[in-house]
Amino acid sequence: MTPALTLLLSLQALAQTISPQLEARAALLASQAEQSNLGYSIVESLTTEVGPRLAGTEAEERARNWAVAKFESMGFANVRVETFALPVWERGVEWAQITAPYPQPLVVTALGGSISTGPDGVEGELASFPSLNALATAPAEIVKGKIILVDEVMTRTQDGSGYSVAAAKRRQAAYIAEEKGALAALIRSVGTSSHRFAHTGQMRRVTEVGEPQGVPAAAISAPDADQLQRILAAHSSLRLRLVLTPERRPAGVSGNVIAEIPGREAPDEIVLIGAHLDSWDLGTGAVDDGAGVGIVMAAAKAVMDAMPNGPRRTIRVVLFGAEEVGVVGGKAYAEAYANELANHIVASESDFGAGRIWRFNTGVVEDKVQVAQALGSVVRSMGAGPGSNAATGGPDMKYLREAGVPVVGLEQNGWDYFDLHHTPNDTLDKIDPQDLAQNVAAWTSFIYLAANSEDSYR
Amino acid sequence: MTPALTLLLSLQALAQTISPQLEARAALLASQAEQSNLGYSIVESLTTEVGPRLAGTEAEERARNWAVAKFESMGFANVRVETFALPVWERGVEWAQITAPYPQPLVVTALGGSISTGPDGVEGELASFPSLNALATAPAEIVKGKIILVDEVMTRTQDGSGYSVAAAKRRQAAYIAEEKGALAALIRSVGTSSHRFAHTGQMRRVTEVGEPQGVPAAAISAPDADQLQRILAAHSSLRLRLVLTPERRPAGVSGNVIAEIPGREAPDEIVLIGAHLDSWDLGTGAVDDGAGVGIVMAAAKAVMDAMPNGPRRTIRVVLFGAEEVGVVGGKAYAEAYANELANHIVASESDFGAGRIWRFNTGVVEDKVQVAQALGSVVRSMGAGPGSNAATGGPDMKYLREAGVPVVGLEQNGWDYFDLHHTPNDTLDKIDPQDLAQNVAAWTSFIYLAANSEDSYR
Repeated sequence: MTPALTLLLSLQALAQTISPQLEARAALLASQAEQSNLGYSIVESLTTEVGPRLAGTEAEERARNWAVAKFESMGFANVRVETFALPVWERGVEWAQITAPYPQPLVVTALGGSISTGPDGVEGELASFPSLNALATAPAEIVKGKIILVDEVMTRTQDGSGYSVAAAKRRQAAYIAEEKGALAALIRSVGTSSHRFAHTGQMRRVTEVGEPQGVPAAAISAPDADQLQRILAAHSSLRLRLVLTPERRPAGVSGNVIAEIPGREAPDEIVLIGAHLDSWDLGTGAVDDGAGVGIVMAAAKAVMDAMPNGPRRTIRVVLFGAEEVGVVGGKAYAEAYANELANHIVASESDFGAGRIWRFNTGVVEDKVQVAQALGSVVRSMGAGPGSNAATGGPDMKYLREAGVPVVGLEQNGWDYFDLHHTPNDTLDKIDPQDLAQNVAAWTSFIYLAANSEDSYR
Repeated sequence: MTPALTLLLSLQALAQTISPQLEARAALLASQAEQSNLGYSIVESLTTEVGPRLAGTEAEERARNWAVAKFESMGFANVRVETFALPVWERGVEWAQITAPYPQPLVVTALGGSISTGPDGVEGELASFPSLNALATAPAEIVKGKIILVDEVMTRTQDGSGYSVAAAKRRQAAYIAEEKGALAALIRSVGTSSHRFAHTGQMRRVTEVGEPQGVPAAAISAPDADQLQRILAAHSSLRLRLVLTPERRPAGVSGNVIAEIPGREAPDEIVLIGAHLDSWDLGTGAVDDGAGVGIVMAAAKAVMDAMPNGPRRTIRVVLFGAEEVGVVGGKAYAEAYANELANHIVASESDFGAGRIWRFNTGVVEDKVQVAQALGSVVRSMGAGPGSNAATGGPDMKYLREAGVPVVGLEQNGWDYFDLHHTPNDTLDKIDPQDLAQNVAAWTSFIYLAANSEDSYR
């Protein structure tokens, strides 16, 4: 290939319709958005007026009603709820105590999907394993009849990469324990804090009749896991009693709430931004994912106000239901809009708290990376470093991504995210309003550029 | 007065028997103690092998047994338990929920001494007051039939001075609420953390038959108090349900554990150092007051090991029972030893966590301040600033101080202490072993000097 041809191909790869004027306007809107507290006020409203909003419950329905009213009051078009059915799990009593060599209470919380121990609970000897793999490879005779503990520590990272490793024990422990005849399963919380909170979260989701149900399963706080290890080191036997009485209802309702800013020139072309509306039941769902709700609603509103005649393409904001219990809303959306996914230009979800954005990633075909990276030009000017093409777009983007929808990731600093994640401590006061506003500003620039460009990313 | 006479009087005031050699030896022992992890290992043992140890319970008895065995294994003399009777209060169910304008759970914990609501709880409208004084001066008609909240914020200070101000609401709210006909009383936790823990603690102690018992009373976490204020600001009415089922037993047993290093030349002269053995039931009592137990036991052991023939005076270590519920052990000690208090040369308790010592205070008659300050000479060389003569000596020293026993205060940095105080989060991992060792070193130097001096501080 001649140097001239190489240059030509490079220029073609760079070809994109985002003009310096468009970029300057995006930067201006971002700087205005960073001065606004709209995003924070939305999170405050959701976490106060609704609070915890577990998938399939009355509280999640209240959250949908809140979202519809909020979208309408902000001037969004085509506001609608799209419901779907799902089985519902709700927490009951949760209580645990060391019974021997001496009584001590433990801080525990049931894992989402766990079966009940019954009101009298179960009691048995503790068998501790340093990792999920150690449990999986242990002979059944050292597990049978025991309460097992998987005491694997999660690694703290800025990008959250420690989570998927650590969450494996939450997803699997109850089923492996069941295969080997255990009474119940405990895990060291999937979290990075040394505060005495147990972190809940979903087990592998049981969807088919006849599938194994797992043993009763709970997370214990990090200080409790450490305490158990100290006692085990000094005593040959440690016994526990565990009471968990969650309930499961086969048929409940969840739903996605959708609102739009209709496109002026290409209304069928969709720029989709999302967050999830449901939360775990222990906190008020501020960082997970009230923050994301505030960020995407406020960013879309900033673009709406700046363009009274609408952006070129349609901006669609989707607040997903039932993310926490297995991305049920994300799947329902992908199924409902299967015929329109080819028109989804680009999609992304904000679901990693309110930490500042430090990287703009893409998740597109290789020859579109450069043109898709142009959507992050203003984000980069706000302090985000060069990104990779490994963006997932967020949990609710899974099925869209698999269907070929291009995604981007406005990656947040998640250093502290798993200190709070899925605990009672996930409350409004943990959000820094200025960090949240930086997110709103970054998203404003991204969606302004995406909705006013003529580029394709697939 | 002539200059010469002034100089003479100053020299007399400074006169003290602590020689440069004694001080150098104290400094050497302190530097050795700072390299040891004995103090931390004692806290680890107490918080692991006993855990929570509420006054008057089986767990506190286990703590006494632990202390006797530990003192004996370390070589202390005259190890003994001195029991005393007290009424016992134990926590039951505790649960609270907003019922209107919409349901939300709250994090609460009963205050020590609270009566029960009964298993069905109480429900009523919330009436919020910004301070205890606002409640005290409110007309009864706006309190009657309500659940009241005293939402007074505690000030964070290094010296803990915010505590006595903030704790007034914990001591008084239930009784003032009762006088005005309230259903129940809530207080914003006496604490400085924004984590979602409620801080327990004792109400004003009811000691006489026929005294008012107060309404059922609980603390709520700081984020919950903030949430209630946001909801109150937006809605004309907020209703709550509160369930607390603590139980009271009229007759229980607590006790002080005492151990000594007998004095060689003046065995009747007592240098008393203490900490309290009981803890609240929610955490494992690491900073309150496992740390103090570790500090004074390790410091005394360091002096014992350095002086095989014993110090000049007797060093007496007292681990007090039932401090948390009203300094019951401190009072029992003062009564039991009333005839010997004139021989108590100086006394002090370590009960403010494991933060580094930053000040050496005295609590002695004015003309003994300078000679008593000499006991802190090595502590000052470790980074403690000039002190005042306002030392209390610690909570269990109250009755000794009132009886004229000189006290000193090795004052700790308590900036974070009330983040953890009286919560489930008071666990071993919150102690910095190096900071704890600095405390042990400081106490080692103080008791070495006090026990080998011939000075009097009264």
